[in-house]
Amino acid sequence: MANEVILLDTWASMFGMRARIALAEKSVKYEYKEEDLRNKSPLLLQMNPIHNKIPVLIHNGKSICESAIIVQYIDEVWNDKASFMPSDPYERAQARFWVDYSDKKVYDTWKKMWLSKGEEYEEGKMELISIFKTLEGALSDKLFYGGDTFGFLDIGLIPFYSWFYAFETYGNFKMETECPKLMAWTKRCMEKDSVSKSLPDQKKVYDFVVSIKKALGLD
Amino acid sequence: MANEVILLDTWASMFGMRARIALAEKSVKYEYKEEDLRNKSPLLLQMNPIHNKIPVLIHNGKSICESAIIVQYIDEVWNDKASFMPSDPYERAQARFWVDYSDKKVYDTWKKMWLSKGEEYEEGKMELISIFKTLEGALSDKLFYGGDTFGFLDIGLIPFYSWFYAFETYGNFKMETECPKLMAWTKRCMEKDSVSKSLPDQKKVYDFVVSIKKALGLD
Repeated sequence: MANEVILLDTWASMFGMRARIALAEKSVKYEYKEEDLRNKSPLLLQMNPIHNKIPVLIHNGKSICESAIIVQYIDEVWNDKASFMPSDPYERAQARFWVDYSDKKVYDTWKKMWLSKGEEYEEGKMELISIFKTLEGALSDKLFYGGDTFGFLDIGLIPFYSWFYAFETYGNFKMETECPKLMAWTKRCMEKDSVSKSLPDQKKVYDFVVSIKKALGLD
Repeated sequence: MANEVILLDTWASMFGMRARIALAEKSVKYEYKEEDLRNKSPLLLQMNPIHNKIPVLIHNGKSICESAIIVQYIDEVWNDKASFMPSDPYERAQARFWVDYSDKKVYDTWKKMWLSKGEEYEEGKMELISIFKTLEGALSDKLFYGGDTFGFLDIGLIPFYSWFYAFETYGNFKMETECPKLMAWTKRCMEKDSVSKSLPDQKKVYDFVVSIKKALGLD
């Protein structure tokens, strides 16, 4: 069977990066197709007709959508390499729980802080810091969320690192001060090629975020 | 090892029902603890400190939260019976996708219709019908979402059936007219003891919903 793998993605997407890291971890060769979210391609609309969102993994013509589901799919299909998932069902449930938590919390709270002023801005900022402190608590004293090895939850969370400079600059706080253990974990992750080569530069993400806010007339 | 299983739940919860069905399918004996959501127990707050929500499964003192994650946990721990999950990774990704879709769409859209009037009500109603038509499309001509057998996505979706009378009455539409294939599927599911014994009566759910709206002063 031909093994044609295509990823529809946008370079700055926190969620697209999960798929890129997972593919790199499994050494899967794929075609990367950059999407312009203001002018989505017919292929994206066809392959994710329900949400019209990136990332979409297209494997031999079939589409898989939603980043956490894509990462699990990659893990299950390319199973010749070590699984991303912990072997214990309770640990697996915990990893899924925290990925789900980050899905529900990080992006929406960042948007609240980024796009508002005054009281709502302050609320968003405190919430965003509190979310990362909570995630730091879940790391505890482990090397990686996966324990001694980089796994599903590490893949789920490390993309946020590329947005840290934007979070810090708009929020006027320092991740290093707020979450030193989490920052040490980001450094360990960034030593992996699968991560460092999949994440864009933090300043480039910040410049992108500034340009979007200007384009929205909110600056 | 002792196998102590406790479910913190509320009888009318669409999400708690998923856990009940999964436990019944695997013939797991457990203690059911009804929660009063207006006065949550210290055990619930301790066992789900992040979301303070039901359902929570407590297995030998450890808590598992979020209904879709609970169902996967039950599937993986009590693996002496057939898995809820399709054997094919693509089918598994699809099952996860539609459970996630229903998580994101059904309850919020129902609330939009239930708690609003005028244009927003009409919008909510049309959206709710459209969601179930979309879910019916995903069933296609299969007996169950799991194919010939009742599986993960069936467990994820069938609890909504117990709310259909409330949806229909507040929305002034008929599921039988809008989604006849989906209705035929609900009948097949309800022939299973694991489902029929886990779902409350539709009229009881409706009365509950009426009483909540009154208590909110919105009637």
